[in-house]
Amino acid sequence: MAKERIYLFDTTLRDGQQTPGVDFSVEDKIAIANMLDAFGMDYVEGGYPGANPTDTAFFSKKRTGRAGFVAFGMTKRAGVSVSNDPGLNELLRAKSDHICFVGKSWDYHVKVALGCTNEENLESIDLSVKAAIDAGKGAMIDCEHFFDGYKANPAYALACAKTAYEAGARWIVLCDTNGGTQPSEIREIVAAVIAAGVPGDRLGIHAHNDTGQAVANSLAAVEAGVRQIQGTLNGIGERCGNANLVTIIPTLVLKPAYNECFETGIDREALQGLTKLSHDFDELLNRSPETQAPYVGSSAFATKAGIHASALLKDPRTYEHVEPETVGNLRKVMVSDQGGKSNFINALKRRGIDVGKDDPRLDTLITIVKEREATGYAYEGADASFELLARRTLGSVPDFFRVESFRVMVERRFDANGQLKTVSEAVVKTVIDGETVMSVAEGHGPVNALDIAIRKDLGRYQPEIADLELVDYKVRILNGGTEAITRVLIESSDDTGARWWTVGVSDNIIDASFQALMDSIVYKLMKNRELAGKVAAE
Amino acid sequence: MAKERIYLFDTTLRDGQQTPGVDFSVEDKIAIANMLDAFGMDYVEGGYPGANPTDTAFFSKKRTGRAGFVAFGMTKRAGVSVSNDPGLNELLRAKSDHICFVGKSWDYHVKVALGCTNEENLESIDLSVKAAIDAGKGAMIDCEHFFDGYKANPAYALACAKTAYEAGARWIVLCDTNGGTQPSEIREIVAAVIAAGVPGDRLGIHAHNDTGQAVANSLAAVEAGVRQIQGTLNGIGERCGNANLVTIIPTLVLKPAYNECFETGIDREALQGLTKLSHDFDELLNRSPETQAPYVGSSAFATKAGIHASALLKDPRTYEHVEPETVGNLRKVMVSDQGGKSNFINALKRRGIDVGKDDPRLDTLITIVKEREATGYAYEGADASFELLARRTLGSVPDFFRVESFRVMVERRFDANGQLKTVSEAVVKTVIDGETVMSVAEGHGPVNALDIAIRKDLGRYQPEIADLELVDYKVRILNGGTEAITRVLIESSDDTGARWWTVGVSDNIIDASFQALMDSIVYKLMKNRELAGKVAAE
Repeated sequence: MAKERIYLFDTTLRDGQQTPGVDFSVEDKIAIANMLDAFGMDYVEGGYPGANPTDTAFFSKKRTGRAGFVAFGMTKRAGVSVSNDPGLNELLRAKSDHICFVGKSWDYHVKVALGCTNEENLESIDLSVKAAIDAGKGAMIDCEHFFDGYKANPAYALACAKTAYEAGARWIVLCDTNGGTQPSEIREIVAAVIAAGVPGDRLGIHAHNDTGQAVANSLAAVEAGVRQIQGTLNGIGERCGNANLVTIIPTLVLKPAYNECFETGIDREALQGLTKLSHDFDELLNRSPETQAPYVGSSAFATKAGIHASALLKDPRTYEHVEPETVGNLRKVMVSDQGGKSNFINALKRRGIDVGKDDPRLDTLITIVKEREATGYAYEGADASFELLARRTLGSVPDFFRVESFRVMVERRFDANGQLKTVSEAVVKTVIDGETVMSVAEGHGPVNALDIAIRKDLGRYQPEIADLELVDYKVRILNGGTEAITRVLIESSDDTGARWWTVGVSDNIIDASFQALMDSIVYKLMKNRELAGKVAAE
Repeated sequence: MAKERIYLFDTTLRDGQQTPGVDFSVEDKIAIANMLDAFGMDYVEGGYPGANPTDTAFFSKKRTGRAGFVAFGMTKRAGVSVSNDPGLNELLRAKSDHICFVGKSWDYHVKVALGCTNEENLESIDLSVKAAIDAGKGAMIDCEHFFDGYKANPAYALACAKTAYEAGARWIVLCDTNGGTQPSEIREIVAAVIAAGVPGDRLGIHAHNDTGQAVANSLAAVEAGVRQIQGTLNGIGERCGNANLVTIIPTLVLKPAYNECFETGIDREALQGLTKLSHDFDELLNRSPETQAPYVGSSAFATKAGIHASALLKDPRTYEHVEPETVGNLRKVMVSDQGGKSNFINALKRRGIDVGKDDPRLDTLITIVKEREATGYAYEGADASFELLARRTLGSVPDFFRVESFRVMVERRFDANGQLKTVSEAVVKTVIDGETVMSVAEGHGPVNALDIAIRKDLGRYQPEIADLELVDYKVRILNGGTEAITRVLIESSDDTGARWWTVGVSDNIIDASFQALMDSIVYKLMKNRELAGKVAAE
């Protein structure tokens, strides 16, 4: 039996723009459109030309190759003709392949928000769709509030959908604008629309995550007959976000419940780029990827040492719903104080460190890790510190440099002008190749000052760490009160795009930070040598 | 028609403990169990006594009042009797009301992981359930891999469920251990279990979020007949997490699709504590609440200036699927934030501060709080600092003393014996009644040294703060990178049993800590005077 095609419609650049804290520039939009196009989305909705200068500029050119390029906008205003509606004409002039009109389908909103009659709204839908087609574009309609509208007045909601269909719209998209509709209601209402004469292969679903079910609602709609899914990268969007295409796509491609009946524009090879797509998008948003995200999170295929870990090592498939490689992700069995010998061997192997299970240094490493985790170190969250500890125990980390002493001072007092002022200063004494170097720096706080001072002069290693950047810093107090132990985790990155976490633990937050900073620098130097070794060997 | 009861089973302390990066202490577990119990969960699963020292210590006492206290553990090992299985006996001895056994229900796992026959596994289930009942406890069984097991060998999966049911288990919980099952499969398989003779009011669902559908799968199971839902606070859990009870509960309570047929132990009044519960839990985990979380996220009822904002202002219900107050959250229209005045009046009233709604000082206070929260202060988690700020703005806090300057130094170097040593020292200059006092102290770290130095000599106030104790200290980095802002929260207590939280924010961690320490001391002095006033008035 031929599989039915499901079309993927990405609205990251339009509805995603409504996310609190997200504000795309034209350059951002171009970069994201390229990512979406290259990945294989069917449609890329780019924004609302005419609504703001960014979107107008973005639509001055066609921005996609394979994907259909879609402009979003309002239907014709009631009481004016098509040619006399400046907003609609701006939409028709935009360099898009398609126009997706937002059309009211809840009679209450027609009255309150548009202030026109139900019949005028139907006429606006009809004439807008026809105007788009006359301009040589594909026409779509987002039926706003469709599900809530249907509950209030089913006949009118259906009339809106049918009007668009009969006017020739390629897609009639049913929107759960407020995001509160449940999957059972989606199934029931989609079935009613199809029964009313709009075929499923002309219907789309636009779901929001206000009850945590945007993905389930989208898939429920597909089961009920719709053939287009609207969503965003990583589920960004207004309030709780839109349906997450990064979650929906692998489910459609990999799960028998769907891939036996349906196909998308994404094949299994393209799917292997999913984790990178998701992480690249977060990078562009300048935020850390969500570790527990389905399929693409760094924890999505992670297992803590516990009752599952040993079975997982015997046969990964027994504790994984799909293979991590299918979405470009990795399996991770975490080192932790409960871990056994085979966990360690596997964790080391993934880092390119081979060690026999009878090697006494392996026992030494396990003992050290367990002792340190008992005092508060958390190596499962600090891969780079774990790798360093392992390589040190196995004897393969050079002594690049040594910090002989440091002093950090924070002073708060009134300055000459009577203003309260806090100054942080760090002094570091470092020995490199037998020579002692002293560096001093001020910073926003004591850790920042220390970081700057340590990295100020590392002699011949200085050029190597020029691209090292501290990107995240976490502090956790492990036990309260006066005997508090502080754990510091630091995330670093460099120009190769690599990211690594290091850890430090002490009853002194400065000391804990110092340990994590040192591990970060040494890891970077070691990594540089490994890369150089690989290049030399090629 | 009488509504059917849905039971809420929280496994934050057990499956939540499997979350990468999460590691609860006994004190953490006690605090979380209290939160869950107070909120109204039916069951609180506390961990696995015997598996590690933390869980064993946690189960040395019953830790809940209203909620059933549940211990988790393995069924009896094959080949030994109940009395000769040390793990099972440790479970039976634990101070829990119920035992939830994990029982294999996929024949492949019985062979590979347990290494016993299918019949031996059924016998283990049977005897374990009976042993729990004989010990006076409620018995439950988590049918591990139930859905995958059913797909591989339906007869055996059903036999496992039926064996537990016939042995007298109160709940037979169907687990989607790998998290890959789709809602349509859940509905079909739950129906098959009920058809095989295990009634729905004895069935539970345990869903994971590997395809982003843990909430939908749980609700699909309820629609198919199960009456217990297992999940966690904020959806923490292994890999992509467990079903998020913070999302499921309001959906069950507020959505007609559910509340017309079902009721839970959470009524509408209790539901108003949901946002606080979710945020308090994140605070305990020392992580920022997810802004886009359904119902409880700070963006869940936020609307950006755009096509929706003006309609929202006309009639909020047209763009909100539920009212934010129902879950203790707030509406946020980012263009003009009108809300809040009555919130403030109520918050002040709760602290015994009466202020009229037309008092201009109230507007000043609201402005200050909003400005400070925009820079990172979190008054929701720092009651004492909020009260101080309010009383200062309303003009009723004396200037007890003033810290003119401080200096904190951390030095790490080799001591005379060649040992690495880190020393923290603080010097504080304080003015009390016109007299300047200088104090110096060493501490375990810079904040501890500063705390000791400030409290070393407060002149005539010194006896009053003798019983002041710093009991918890939390640090959060609000934005990563070099421009990180640090928020410090400090919990203090005294001999009256009172506990209070104060907050400080700065790009300098020492400065932030100083602010919170100062607020704590001043609050204590103010509180002493209030108590004295009350005693005098009696």
